Amino acid sequence: MNREQMIESVKAQMPEKRWQHTVGVMETAVVLAERYGEDPARAELAAILHDVAKYWPIAKMEQIIRDQRLDFSLLAHDKQLWHSEVGAWSAEHEYGVTDQGVIDAIRYHTSGRVGMTKLDKIVCLADYMEPGRDFPGVDRVRELSGESLERALVAGFDSTISFLLSKEKAIFPVTIEARNDLIQQLREAE
Amino acid sequence: MNREQMIESVKAQMPEKRWQHTVGVMETAVVLAERYGEDPARAELAAILHDVAKYWPIAKMEQIIRDQRLDFSLLAHDKQLWHSEVGAWSAEHEYGVTDQGVIDAIRYHTSGRVGMTKLDKIVCLADYMEPGRDFPGVDRVRELSGESLERALVAGFDSTISFLLSKEKAIFPVTIEARNDLIQQLREAE
Repeated sequence: MNREQMIESVKAQMPEKRWQHTVGVMETAVVLAERYGEDPARAELAAILHDVAKYWPIAKMEQIIRDQRLDFSLLAHDKQLWHSEVGAWSAEHEYGVTDQGVIDAIRYHTSGRVGMTKLDKIVCLADYMEPGRDFPGVDRVRELSGESLERALVAGFDSTISFLLSKEKAIFPVTIEARNDLIQQLREAE
Repeated sequence: MNREQMIESVKAQMPEKRWQHTVGVMETAVVLAERYGEDPARAELAAILHDVAKYWPIAKMEQIIRDQRLDFSLLAHDKQLWHSEVGAWSAEHEYGVTDQGVIDAIRYHTSGRVGMTKLDKIVCLADYMEPGRDFPGVDRVRELSGESLERALVAGFDSTISFLLSKEKAIFPVTIEARNDLIQQLREAE
Protein backbone atom coordinates (compact mmCIF):
# COMPACT_ATOMS: atom_id res chain seq x y z
CA MET A 1 0.00 0.00 0.00
CA ASN A 2 1.49 3.34 -0.99
CA ARG A 3 1.20 6.62 0.95
CA GLU A 4 -1.84 7.86 -1.00
CA GLN A 5 -3.72 4.58 -0.58
CA MET A 6 -2.98 4.60 3.13
CA ILE A 7 -4.24 8.16 3.45
CA GLU A 8 -7.46 7.30 1.59
CA SER A 9 -8.00 4.24 3.76
CA VAL A 10 -7.48 6.13 7.03
CA LYS A 11 -9.57 9.09 5.90
CA ALA A 12 -12.49 6.77 5.12
CA GLN A 13 -12.57 5.59 8.75
CA MET A 14 -13.25 8.91 10.45
CA PRO A 15 -15.39 12.04 10.17
CA GLU A 16 -13.97 14.89 8.05
CA LYS A 17 -13.18 16.96 11.17
CA ARG A 18 -11.00 14.22 12.66
CA TRP A 19 -9.29 13.80 9.30
CA GLN A 20 -8.44 17.51 9.32
CA HIS A 21 -6.93 16.97 12.77
CA THR A 22 -4.84 14.11 11.35
CA VAL A 23 -3.58 16.37 8.53
CA GLY A 24 -2.60 18.93 11.18
CA VAL A 25 -0.73 16.26 13.15
CA MET A 26 1.07 15.08 9.99
CA GLU A 27 2.26 18.58 9.13
CA THR A 28 3.23 19.43 12.70
CA ALA A 29 5.05 16.12 13.20
CA VAL A 30 7.11 16.73 10.05
CA VAL A 31 8.07 20.23 11.22
CA LEU A 32 9.06 18.92 14.67
CA ALA A 33 11.04 16.03 13.12
CA GLU A 34 13.01 18.45 10.98
CA ARG A 35 13.60 20.74 13.95
CA TYR A 36 14.74 18.01 16.32
CA GLY A 37 16.63 15.69 13.96
CA GLU A 38 14.18 12.82 13.47
CA ASP A 39 13.30 11.23 10.12
CA PRO A 40 10.27 13.21 8.83
CA ALA A 41 8.99 10.17 6.89
CA ARG A 42 8.73 8.11 10.09
CA ALA A 43 7.03 11.01 11.88
CA GLU A 44 4.53 11.43 9.04
CA LEU A 45 3.79 7.71 8.84
CA ALA A 46 3.02 7.53 12.57
CA ALA A 47 0.89 10.69 12.28
CA ILE A 48 -1.16 9.34 9.35
CA LEU A 49 -2.06 6.23 11.33
CA HIS A 50 -2.19 7.57 14.90
CA ASP A 51 -5.99 7.95 15.06
CA VAL A 52 -6.96 5.22 12.59
CA ALA A 53 -8.98 3.38 15.26
CA LYS A 54 -10.44 6.50 16.93
CA TYR A 55 -13.94 5.93 15.55
CA TRP A 56 -14.00 2.19 15.64
CA PRO A 57 -16.84 0.73 17.73
CA ILE A 58 -15.93 0.32 21.41
CA ALA A 59 -16.81 -3.39 21.24
CA LYS A 60 -14.43 -3.92 18.31
CA MET A 61 -11.59 -2.21 20.18
CA GLU A 62 -12.24 -4.23 23.32
CA GLN A 63 -12.35 -7.44 21.26
CA ILE A 64 -8.99 -6.70 19.65
CA ILE A 65 -7.40 -5.81 23.00
CA ARG A 66 -8.62 -9.15 24.41
CA ASP A 67 -8.04 -11.37 21.37
CA GLN A 68 -4.62 -9.97 20.54
CA ARG A 69 -3.60 -9.98 24.19
CA LEU A 70 -2.74 -6.31 24.14
CA ASP A 71 -2.51 -4.23 27.33
CA PHE A 72 -5.54 -5.42 29.38
CA SER A 73 -4.95 -2.71 32.03
CA LEU A 74 -6.36 -0.23 29.50
CA LEU A 75 -9.78 -1.83 29.81
CA ALA A 76 -10.04 -0.53 33.36
CA HIS A 77 -9.29 3.00 32.17
CA ASP A 78 -10.89 5.60 29.94
CA LYS A 79 -11.89 4.39 26.48
CA GLN A 80 -10.04 7.39 25.04
CA LEU A 81 -6.88 5.39 25.67
CA TRP A 82 -7.95 2.29 23.75
CA HIS A 83 -7.65 3.66 20.21
CA SER A 84 -3.88 4.16 20.55
CA GLU A 85 -3.20 0.55 21.45
CA VAL A 86 -5.61 -0.72 18.82
CA GLY A 87 -4.23 1.75 16.26
CA ALA A 88 -0.72 0.39 16.84
CA TRP A 89 -2.05 -3.11 16.23
CA SER A 90 -3.81 -1.94 13.03
CA ALA A 91 -0.65 -0.21 11.78
CA GLU A 92 1.30 -3.42 12.15
CA HIS A 93 -1.28 -5.98 11.07
CA GLU A 94 -3.54 -4.12 8.65
CA TYR A 95 -1.14 -1.58 7.15
CA GLY A 96 2.00 -3.70 7.22
CA VAL A 97 4.14 -1.22 9.18
CA THR A 98 7.32 -3.02 10.28
CA ASP A 99 9.15 -0.12 11.97
CA GLN A 100 8.63 -0.85 15.68
CA GLY A 101 9.50 2.75 16.54
CA VAL A 102 6.59 3.96 14.42
CA ILE A 103 4.25 1.35 15.91
CA ASP A 104 5.26 2.39 19.44
CA ALA A 105 4.81 6.08 18.66
CA ILE A 106 1.20 5.27 17.71
CA ARG A 107 0.76 3.05 20.80
CA TYR A 108 1.93 5.74 23.25
CA HIS A 109 0.64 8.87 21.53
CA THR A 110 -2.12 9.44 24.10
CA SER A 111 -0.65 8.10 27.33
CA GLY A 112 3.08 8.65 26.86
CA ARG A 113 5.39 6.20 28.64
CA VAL A 114 8.57 6.11 30.68
CA GLY A 115 11.54 6.35 28.30
CA MET A 116 9.73 8.04 25.41
CA THR A 117 11.79 8.01 22.21
CA LYS A 118 12.26 11.18 20.17
CA LEU A 119 9.64 9.87 17.73
CA ASP A 120 7.17 9.16 20.57
CA LYS A 121 7.63 12.72 21.81
CA ILE A 122 7.17 14.25 18.35
CA VAL A 123 3.94 12.39 17.59
CA CYS A 124 2.48 12.98 21.05
CA LEU A 125 3.39 16.67 20.97
CA ALA A 126 2.10 17.13 17.39
CA ASP A 127 -1.19 15.62 18.56
CA TYR A 128 -1.36 18.23 21.35
CA MET A 129 -0.44 21.30 19.34
CA GLU A 130 -1.52 20.86 15.69
CA PRO A 131 -3.13 24.08 14.42
CA GLY A 132 -6.71 22.86 14.96
CA ARG A 133 -6.23 22.30 18.70
CA ASP A 134 -7.76 24.78 21.09
CA PHE A 135 -7.54 24.11 24.82
CA PRO A 136 -6.38 26.23 27.77
CA GLY A 137 -2.60 26.31 27.60
CA VAL A 138 -2.18 25.21 23.97
CA ASP A 139 -0.38 28.45 23.04
CA ARG A 140 2.12 27.85 25.80
CA VAL A 141 2.70 24.31 24.47
CA ARG A 142 3.33 25.72 20.96
CA GLU A 143 5.67 28.36 22.35
CA LEU A 144 7.70 25.79 24.32
CA SER A 145 7.89 23.47 21.28
CA GLY A 146 10.37 25.93 19.77
CA GLU A 147 12.84 25.40 22.59
CA SER A 148 12.36 21.90 23.97
CA LEU A 149 10.33 18.81 23.04
CA GLU A 150 10.33 17.76 26.69
CA ARG A 151 9.19 21.09 28.13
CA ALA A 152 6.42 21.39 25.57
CA LEU A 153 5.27 17.84 26.25
CA VAL A 154 5.25 18.35 30.04
CA ALA A 155 3.06 21.41 29.48
CA GLY A 156 0.73 19.30 27.31
CA PHE A 157 0.47 16.53 29.89
CA ASP A 158 -0.08 19.13 32.63
CA SER A 159 -3.06 20.53 30.70
CA THR A 160 -4.55 17.06 30.39
CA ILE A 161 -4.00 16.28 34.07
CA SER A 162 -5.51 19.62 35.18
CA PHE A 163 -8.52 18.98 32.96
CA LEU A 164 -9.04 15.50 34.44
CA LEU A 165 -8.68 16.92 37.98
CA SER A 166 -11.28 19.60 37.29
CA LYS A 167 -13.73 17.03 35.87
CA GLU A 168 -13.14 14.56 38.72
CA LYS A 169 -12.05 11.93 36.18
CA ALA A 170 -9.51 9.16 36.63
CA ILE A 171 -5.91 9.95 35.62
CA PHE A 172 -3.91 7.22 33.84
CA PRO A 173 -0.87 6.50 36.08
CA VAL A 174 1.33 5.80 33.01
CA THR A 175 0.89 9.45 31.98
CA ILE A 176 2.05 10.56 35.43
CA GLU A 177 5.11 8.32 35.14
CA ALA A 178 5.80 9.62 31.61
CA ARG A 179 5.59 13.21 32.89
CA ASN A 180 7.82 12.46 35.91
CA ASP A 181 10.35 10.87 33.57
CA LEU A 182 10.40 13.90 31.24
CA ILE A 183 10.95 16.21 34.22
CA GLN A 184 13.80 13.97 35.32
CA GLN A 185 15.33 14.15 31.81
CA LEU A 186 15.07 17.96 31.90
CA ARG A 187 16.76 18.11 35.32
CA GLU A 188 19.59 15.87 34.14
CA ALA A 189 20.11 18.02 31.03
CA GLU A 190 20.38 21.25 33.05
CA MET B 1 4.55 3.29 77.30
CA ASN B 2 1.37 5.14 78.19
CA ARG B 3 -0.31 7.88 76.12
CA GLU B 4 1.40 10.74 77.98
CA GLN B 5 4.85 9.18 77.66
CA MET B 6 4.27 8.60 73.94
CA ILE B 7 3.21 12.21 73.47
CA GLU B 8 6.30 13.47 75.31
CA SER B 9 8.56 11.23 73.24
CA VAL B 10 7.07 12.32 69.88
CA LYS B 11 7.01 15.99 70.89
CA ALA B 12 10.72 15.84 71.70
CA GLN B 13 11.52 14.79 68.13
CA MET B 14 10.14 17.80 66.28
CA PRO B 15 10.01 21.61 66.42
CA GLU B 16 7.18 23.18 68.43
CA LYS B 17 5.35 24.23 65.24
CA ARG B 18 5.22 20.68 63.91
CA TRP B 19 4.04 19.49 67.31
CA GLN B 20 1.18 22.00 67.15
CA HIS B 21 0.31 20.51 63.74
CA THR B 22 0.29 17.04 65.32
CA VAL B 23 -2.07 18.24 68.05
CA GLY B 24 -4.34 19.61 65.29
CA VAL B 25 -4.28 16.27 63.48
CA MET B 26 -5.07 14.41 66.74
CA GLU B 27 -8.10 16.59 67.46
CA THR B 28 -9.35 16.53 63.87
CA ALA B 29 -8.87 12.77 63.54
CA VAL B 30 -10.93 12.18 66.70
CA VAL B 31 -13.75 14.41 65.40
CA LEU B 32 -13.75 12.61 62.02
CA ALA B 33 -13.66 9.20 63.71
CA GLU B 34 -16.70 10.09 65.80
CA ARG B 35 -18.51 11.45 62.75
CA TYR B 36 -17.80 8.47 60.50
CA GLY B 37 -17.99 5.58 62.97
CA GLU B 38 -14.33 4.73 63.56
CA ASP B 39 -12.71 4.10 66.95
CA PRO B 40 -11.45 7.54 68.14
CA ALA B 41 -8.65 5.92 70.17
CA ARG B 42 -7.19 4.28 67.04
CA ALA B 43 -7.48 7.53 65.10
CA GLU B 44 -5.75 9.45 67.87
CA LEU B 45 -2.95 6.90 68.21
CA ALA B 46 -2.20 7.04 64.48
CA ALA B 47 -2.33 10.85 64.61
CA ILE B 48 0.09 11.09 67.57
CA LEU B 49 2.67 9.03 65.70
CA HIS B 50 2.02 10.04 62.08
CA ASP B 51 4.88 12.56 61.83
CA VAL B 52 7.25 11.03 64.40
CA ALA B 53 9.97 10.62 61.75
CA LYS B 54 9.35 13.93 59.95
CA TYR B 55 12.50 15.58 61.30
CA TRP B 56 14.76 12.57 61.35
CA PRO B 57 17.93 12.96 59.28
CA ILE B 58 17.49 11.95 55.62
CA ALA B 59 20.36 9.48 55.91
CA LYS B 60 18.72 7.78 58.90
CA MET B 61 15.42 7.42 57.02
CA GLU B 62 17.17 6.01 53.96
CA GLN B 63 19.12 3.58 56.14
CA ILE B 64 15.96 2.28 57.78
CA ILE B 65 14.17 1.91 54.42
CA ARG B 66 17.12 -0.14 53.13
CA ASP B 67 17.94 -2.14 56.27
CA GLN B 68 14.34 -2.97 57.11
CA ARG B 69 13.53 -3.75 53.47
CA LEU B 70 10.70 -1.25 53.41
CA ASP B 71 9.33 0.14 50.11
CA PHE B 72 12.49 0.87 48.05
CA SER B 73 10.46 2.61 45.32
CA LEU B 74 10.11 5.54 47.73
CA LEU B 75 13.83 6.25 47.45
CA ALA B 76 13.31 7.32 43.82
CA HIS B 77 10.61 9.78 44.92
CA ASP B 78 10.38 12.91 47.00
CA LYS B 79 11.87 12.66 50.47
CA GLN B 80 8.58 14.06 51.83
CA LEU B 81 7.19 10.55 51.34
CA TRP B 82 9.86 8.76 53.35
CA HIS B 83 8.78 9.84 56.83
CA SER B 84 5.45 8.03 56.51
CA GLU B 85 7.03 4.66 55.78
CA VAL B 86 9.69 5.17 58.44
CA GLY B 87 7.10 6.47 60.90
CA ALA B 88 5.08 3.28 60.44
CA TRP B 89 8.20 1.26 61.18
CA SER B 90 8.89 3.37 64.28
CA ALA B 91 5.30 2.97 65.52
CA GLU B 92 5.62 -0.80 65.32
CA HIS B 93 9.20 -1.31 66.47
CA GLU B 94 9.91 1.63 68.76
CA TYR B 95 6.47 2.35 70.21
CA GLY B 96 5.17 -1.22 70.24
CA VAL B 97 1.99 -0.56 68.25
CA THR B 98 0.49 -3.92 67.28
CA ASP B 99 -2.67 -2.72 65.51
CA GLN B 100 -1.79 -3.17 61.81
CA GLY B 101 -4.59 -0.79 60.82
CA VAL B 102 -2.97 1.98 62.85
CA ILE B 103 0.47 1.18 61.43
CA ASP B 104 -0.93 1.28 57.88
CA ALA B 105 -2.74 4.57 58.49
CA ILE B 106 0.65 6.06 59.41
CA ARG B 107 2.34 4.40 56.41
CA TYR B 108 -0.16 5.78 53.88
CA HIS B 109 -0.97 9.15 55.46
CA THR B 110 0.95 11.11 52.80
CA SER B 111 0.56 9.02 49.65
CA GLY B 112 -2.77 7.32 50.16
CA ARG B 113 -3.18 3.90 48.52
CA VAL B 114 -5.67 1.87 46.53
CA GLY B 115 -8.25 0.43 48.94
CA MET B 116 -7.79 2.98 51.74
CA THR B 117 -9.47 1.88 54.98
CA LYS B 118 -11.73 4.25 56.88
CA LEU B 119 -8.89 4.83 59.35
CA ASP B 120 -6.44 5.58 56.50
CA LYS B 121 -8.88 8.14 55.12
CA ILE B 122 -9.44 9.79 58.49
CA VAL B 123 -5.75 10.22 59.29
CA CYS B 124 -4.87 11.41 55.78
CA LEU B 125 -7.77 13.85 55.73
CA ALA B 126 -7.04 15.15 59.25
CA ASP B 127 -3.48 15.81 58.10
CA TYR B 128 -4.84 17.89 55.20
CA MET B 129 -7.41 19.92 57.11
CA GLU B 130 -6.30 20.35 60.75
CA PRO B 131 -6.91 23.95 61.87
CA GLY B 132 -3.29 25.05 61.33
CA ARG B 133 -3.33 24.15 57.62
CA ASP B 134 -3.52 26.96 55.11
CA PHE B 135 -3.26 26.12 51.41
CA PRO B 136 -5.39 27.03 48.38
CA GLY B 137 -8.50 24.88 48.62
CA VAL B 138 -8.24 23.91 52.30
CA ASP B 139 -11.60 25.51 53.12
CA ARG B 140 -13.26 23.42 50.41
CA VAL B 141 -11.66 20.29 51.91
CA ARG B 142 -13.04 21.22 55.37
CA GLU B 143 -16.47 21.92 53.92
CA LEU B 144 -16.58 18.57 52.09
CA SER B 145 -15.42 16.70 55.20
CA GLY B 146 -18.89 17.31 56.65
CA GLU B 147 -20.56 15.30 53.90
CA SER B 148 -18.08 12.70 52.66
CA LEU B 149 -14.64 11.43 53.69
CA GLU B 150 -13.97 10.43 50.09
CA ARG B 151 -15.00 13.72 48.48
CA ALA B 152 -12.95 15.70 50.98
CA LEU B 153 -9.92 13.48 50.43
CA VAL B 154 -10.17 13.73 46.63
CA ALA B 155 -10.21 17.52 47.02
CA GLY B 156 -7.12 17.28 49.24
CA PHE B 157 -5.24 15.08 46.77
CA ASP B 158 -6.29 17.38 43.92
CA SER B 159 -4.73 20.34 45.74
CA THR B 160 -1.49 18.43 46.17
CA ILE B 161 -1.43 17.32 42.53
CA SER B 162 -2.17 20.85 41.26
CA PHE B 163 0.62 22.20 43.47
CA LEU B 164 3.10 19.63 42.12
CA LEU B 165 2.02 20.41 38.53
CA SER B 166 2.55 24.13 39.08
CA LYS B 167 6.01 23.56 40.57
CA GLU B 168 7.04 21.08 37.85
CA LYS B 169 7.65 18.44 40.51
CA ALA B 170 7.24 14.68 40.21
CA ILE B 171 3.85 13.25 41.23
CA PHE B 172 3.80 9.95 43.14
CA PRO B 173 1.80 7.48 40.99
CA VAL B 174 0.40 5.76 44.10
CA THR B 175 -1.40 9.02 44.97
CA ILE B 176 -2.96 9.08 41.50
CA GLU B 177 -4.12 5.50 41.93
CA ALA B 178 -5.48 6.29 45.40
CA ARG B 179 -7.41 9.26 43.98
CA ASN B 180 -8.73 7.20 41.02
CA ASP B 181 -9.87 4.54 43.47
CA LEU B 182 -11.72 7.07 45.68
CA ILE B 183 -13.48 8.48 42.61
CA GLN B 184 -14.46 4.94 41.65
CA GLN B 185 -15.83 4.36 45.17
CA LEU B 186 -17.88 7.57 44.92
CA ARG B 187 -19.31 6.55 41.53
CA GLU B 188 -20.28 3.14 42.84
CA ALA B 189 -22.00 4.69 45.86
CA GLU B 190 -24.08 7.05 43.71
